[in-house]
Amino acid sequence: MLIVMNRNAPPEQIQRVVRIIEAKGFTARPIPGGDRVSIGILNNEGPVDPALFLGLPGVKEAIPVTRPYKLVSREIKPEDTLIQVGGVTIGNGHLTVMGGPCAIESEEQALTIAAHVKNAGGHIFRGGAYKPRTSPYTFQGLGLEGLKILAKVRERYDLPVVTEVMDNETFDQVEEYADIVQIGTRNMQNFSLLKRAGLSKRPIMLKRGMSATLEEWLMAAEYIMAGGNHQVMLCERGVRTFVRHSRNTLDLSVVPVVIKESHLPIIIDPSHAAGVRDQVIPLSRAAVAVGAHGLMVEVHHEPQNALSDGAQSLYPDQFARLCADARKMHAVVRAES
Amino acid sequence: MLIVMNRNAPPEQIQRVVRIIEAKGFTARPIPGGDRVSIGILNNEGPVDPALFLGLPGVKEAIPVTRPYKLVSREIKPEDTLIQVGGVTIGNGHLTVMGGPCAIESEEQALTIAAHVKNAGGHIFRGGAYKPRTSPYTFQGLGLEGLKILAKVRERYDLPVVTEVMDNETFDQVEEYADIVQIGTRNMQNFSLLKRAGLSKRPIMLKRGMSATLEEWLMAAEYIMAGGNHQVMLCERGVRTFVRHSRNTLDLSVVPVVIKESHLPIIIDPSHAAGVRDQVIPLSRAAVAVGAHGLMVEVHHEPQNALSDGAQSLYPDQFARLCADARKMHAVVRAES
Amino acid sequence: MLIVMNRNAPPEQIQRVVRIIEAKGFTARPIPGGDRVSIGILNNEGPVDPALFLGLPGVKEAIPVTRPYKLVSREIKPEDTLIQVGGVTIGNGHLTVMGGPCAIESEEQALTIAAHVKNAGGHIFRGGAYKPRTSPYTFQGLGLEGLKILAKVRERYDLPVVTEVMDNETFDQVEEYADIVQIGTRNMQNFSLLKRAGLSKRPIMLKRGMSATLEEWLMAAEYIMAGGNHQVMLCERGVRTFVRHSRNTLDLSVVPVVIKESHLPIIIDPSHAAGVRDQVIPLSRAAVAVGAHGLMVEVHHEPQNALSDGAQSLYPDQFARLCADARKMHAVVRAES
Amino acid sequence: MLIVMNRNAPPEQIQRVVRIIEAKGFTARPIPGGDRVSIGILNNEGPVDPALFLGLPGVKEAIPVTRPYKLVSREIKPEDTLIQVGGVTIGNGHLTVMGGPCAIESEEQALTIAAHVKNAGGHIFRGGAYKPRTSPYTFQGLGLEGLKILAKVRERYDLPVVTEVMDNETFDQVEEYADIVQIGTRNMQNFSLLKRAGLSKRPIMLKRGMSATLEEWLMAAEYIMAGGNHQVMLCERGVRTFVRHSRNTLDLSVVPVVIKESHLPIIIDPSHAAGVRDQVIPLSRAAVAVGAHGLMVEVHHEPQNALSDGAQSLYPDQFARLCADARKMHAVVRAES
Repeated sequence: MLIVMNRNAPPEQIQRVVRIIEAKGFTARPIPGGDRVSIGILNNEGPVDPALFLGLPGVKEAIPVTRPYKLVSREIKPEDTLIQVGGVTIGNGHLTVMGGPCAIESEEQALTIAAHVKNAGGHIFRGGAYKPRTSPYTFQGLGLEGLKILAKVRERYDLPVVTEVMDNETFDQVEEYADIVQIGTRNMQNFSLLKRAGLSKRPIMLKRGMSATLEEWLMAAEYIMAGGNHQVMLCERGVRTFVRHSRNTLDLSVVPVVIKESHLPIIIDPSHAAGVRDQVIPLSRAAVAVGAHGLMVEVHHEPQNALSDGAQSLYPDQFARLCADARKMHAVVRAES
Repeated sequence: MLIVMNRNAPPEQIQRVVRIIEAKGFTARPIPGGDRVSIGILNNEGPVDPALFLGLPGVKEAIPVTRPYKLVSREIKPEDTLIQVGGVTIGNGHLTVMGGPCAIESEEQALTIAAHVKNAGGHIFRGGAYKPRTSPYTFQGLGLEGLKILAKVRERYDLPVVTEVMDNETFDQVEEYADIVQIGTRNMQNFSLLKRAGLSKRPIMLKRGMSATLEEWLMAAEYIMAGGNHQVMLCERGVRTFVRHSRNTLDLSVVPVVIKESHLPIIIDPSHAAGVRDQVIPLSRAAVAVGAHGLMVEVHHEPQNALSDGAQSLYPDQFARLCADARKMHAVVRAES
Repeated sequence: MLIVMNRNAPPEQIQRVVRIIEAKGFTARPIPGGDRVSIGILNNEGPVDPALFLGLPGVKEAIPVTRPYKLVSREIKPEDTLIQVGGVTIGNGHLTVMGGPCAIESEEQALTIAAHVKNAGGHIFRGGAYKPRTSPYTFQGLGLEGLKILAKVRERYDLPVVTEVMDNETFDQVEEYADIVQIGTRNMQNFSLLKRAGLSKRPIMLKRGMSATLEEWLMAAEYIMAGGNHQVMLCERGVRTFVRHSRNTLDLSVVPVVIKESHLPIIIDPSHAAGVRDQVIPLSRAAVAVGAHGLMVEVHHEPQNALSDGAQSLYPDQFARLCADARKMHAVVRAES
Repeated sequence: MLIVMNRNAPPEQIQRVVRIIEAKGFTARPIPGGDRVSIGILNNEGPVDPALFLGLPGVKEAIPVTRPYKLVSREIKPEDTLIQVGGVTIGNGHLTVMGGPCAIESEEQALTIAAHVKNAGGHIFRGGAYKPRTSPYTFQGLGLEGLKILAKVRERYDLPVVTEVMDNETFDQVEEYADIVQIGTRNMQNFSLLKRAGLSKRPIMLKRGMSATLEEWLMAAEYIMAGGNHQVMLCERGVRTFVRHSRNTLDLSVVPVVIKESHLPIIIDPSHAAGVRDQVIPLSRAAVAVGAHGLMVEVHHEPQNALSDGAQSLYPDQFARLCADARKMHAVVRAES
């Protein structure tokens, strides 16, 4: 923590800050700068609360220096985390493609789409059983029945499945049927759910909140890891900005930063970012090119009849093309690194 | 719903859209415009899913016209909702000031601050027992012990209390002790929690999500009302933007729009928006001036020792000044309306 | 400037940073922190370029501490700047209301509206002669003819006039006719125009850019002051965010921060922020309540026939009510401060 | 234009809107919807101003349907625009890499870097002679001397050059020396400059404004084309969002939308988006993968001594790697399309 003083802060204001730092058991080191004094805090373990200083007379800013996250940090664990799900490895060096419908609508729908996903070379099947919906009046998912259909998909096609959990009440159930448990955008800072996920035996896919900073996102992953579950993968799905030509703005620049800051795998969901089918294939190529470890894409054999998010779902042949493109891109990226 | 076609969409593409509309049992009305055809959808009950049309050949846009919310809408219920808590009325014509610490830290702390809140003319006491914290390593609140302290505050000072609920597991407990149950920013779209709140006998204060649109916020309130609980108040607490001079950007322009669109009361929380004490008093005045029905403000007798959010907490004498200012402002606003 | 090193940066990386600092003639002061070393830079005059350090091995961040602005800063000039235009004083203690149409359309239109502005108690008449328009196909303003109409308004009603300048070619002309020269949102960082404004004898009203930070805005004002023109007022008109219920998001929290950081007056334009008439009056009240020194509002006697921005223009009786409200609000605010 | 009425708007309010539409010479077509009436406007040429209707009693919204841009639109000109500069072709099927320093600092610096750009396979040399700088106190570029150095670079290495123009006063000069004239982010809506660019014989590179919507950006290009200059290329360089891990958020999803909406080439500038060197190579790969027609990248042989933007400049060997990567990526993308 660095405390920046006003340009003309008198010595007694500076001394007061020094005394407060020392009263906490830390060391204060005043730094006279070009036009003002700053005061560094030394020998603190973990972050210091800026609130201790902001609002004191003469204090202009309190700038945190120490990163608040630990377990997710590459500084703590330099080697990449690899996550094993069935025969699939997720993480550095691998490119994992997950495909499937937004929501499980019926056994027939799920099995039909899963066949396409498998044939195209997809590695993991996705599909929502419990659906977070903006409106209480729209389709909320098949629930347990949807989970059972997912289990059939896994059995029939040897595809691990990922599905979203919405609350602690249904966590046991979801955990029983899913190979990867997804925590959605709207729950990224549902701390009770994160704590439960920390106790899970399943790998967790943690989607980035609609307007989460990198730090908040990594701290949400830290909650899960602090609970004992170290199998966490991150999923970027677009953030909310002023932009209107896509539903959300896919933040691909977060990928190299995540890889630098953390050892956890990072997956890209271009479907929710784009909101329309046209953008999904080019954004998927870009995601692989920027270095992401995987893709999660919505596929539907009859998008115009889908119960949710049909406009952003790919037709099966588009998904097949996407998988082929992604493999070629990944070959180039791997050869370069 | 209005389907906008490409400039040169041939008749067969237009006919296909018409057929899909009619297959759903609605009426299609093509509108030849200046340089392209649009197709209006008639006789639909409730919203139509744009996904039915987006991605079809020749379709440029699908523009929703019907508002998705019902129970929260002033079009459905023109008269203002008033909420009664103890002797306090919240809603049109009243100005309700809620004050207290970010977190309940001890009985002594809570009672000390509550005395200040009462003396200053505050109507409701706020204080967190369960705290959503970005980091798993920081103070998470006193939990049940905090709730019991809130009960003492109410008893001692005849102040209704508002406190946050974080999950369904502790909802019964929070509901037992609180007069108003708060759903926080990070849980605005925790739909399981919203459904539980819909079954509650307590009024709910629903904070706006960090980057929630007005529509998403009202739809979250719709979840609660659809569950049977019609006592909902909204709370604006700043949204996330590129701006860095305040922690969040307080969106005061939402107030007249909420009042136009909905009958629910709207409260402003300037403390979380500002992030620093200096801005809280002027923003509180502005909130009353723009027509909000209440304020929720953080107060602490020793902000520099607060366990959370001390930098944004007012000193007791500042809170007293804020209450006095707010009353004067409200008198002017009421006289004008 | 504070250079933050990686957690495990070896001594030679730290030494390299120290050497670079010293090679520039500054003093380096290493600060061993909780989990990493930071290095303070001392004895620099003016800001240091972070680019010197970012990208060096072992360097995590370079955090600027010194504020880049000087002349606009309250640290340099503690007393408020007051600007005198005709008989009107703008700045601390005064509330200046500017009203008029978006664009000057004809002499009759301008004189009609000016009469309403004068009668309602407005202090300054606004009206565009050169109009920045998103589309090249829409009305671009009357140009010189519009400026001459403004001169007639001033003469007839003894109202100083403010109008926008769009380029250096027409600056002499605008300066000749206007009492206050406005630099618009889209030109806030048109540095050639700012330099020309620095040579002007007229006060400048500098609107905030659509997504300008406070620092960028103050630095744009610094350009004008560095050129020798110290009569600058700032104008907040809403910033661009994800929000869709108003055209822009009026950032009222910037007002107390501007007043703290700078001695320049700050005006609020609620019309461009709102985009619709309904929000203009409540936002004007809020602007006065938060401490702004003035308002700039669009008024039109026939908004439905206006050539631009009619939807946000007030009817004359609404403007009269706004002026009355603003005066009452200002009386309360002044009494409190 | 579609006028959406309030749910309970009485017939006389609907009739009033119809009368206003017809008074303008258009055709009104009322559309009774699920829960409200909308009114379509037919037979209008070009866009209708929403201000005509917003604010009328009973009117809820006015939704524009017609796109405001013409000449830039692919609906008007379906085939791609190709731009020829020296021996270099920019546009569909080609991948053009532009490299060079942020600012021209000296002849030696420019020639040294240009040799690296040429050797790496770069096609065009970039370098600023007139520099838009946030602070009036920092290096503003070499001006005419810088332009003359650019001319030497072109002569010596047979590399066309691109450089920024800041105002109309220096446009003739810049045009004389540059092969491509760049209009910068901060001037994207400097309409006087756009009009001048419309008269230029040189191709224009139009950077996207910091928070410009796609429509505003295309309308700015429309200004140039409406003036008679049809050689326009667009350049995305990151937009301003809440995100802090990169300087701006590179909006790669705009690329497929631009290609769908317009026939103009689109270039990506990853250097300004990222702000730090580490992200530039992965983002460049992603830009090619998403379908961009070119890259503009900052290169410096001694970034730590650069007078501006050193932290984001690549070392020469990094730039060589980037060019090689980009070519491989482009081969994959071309084979797929």
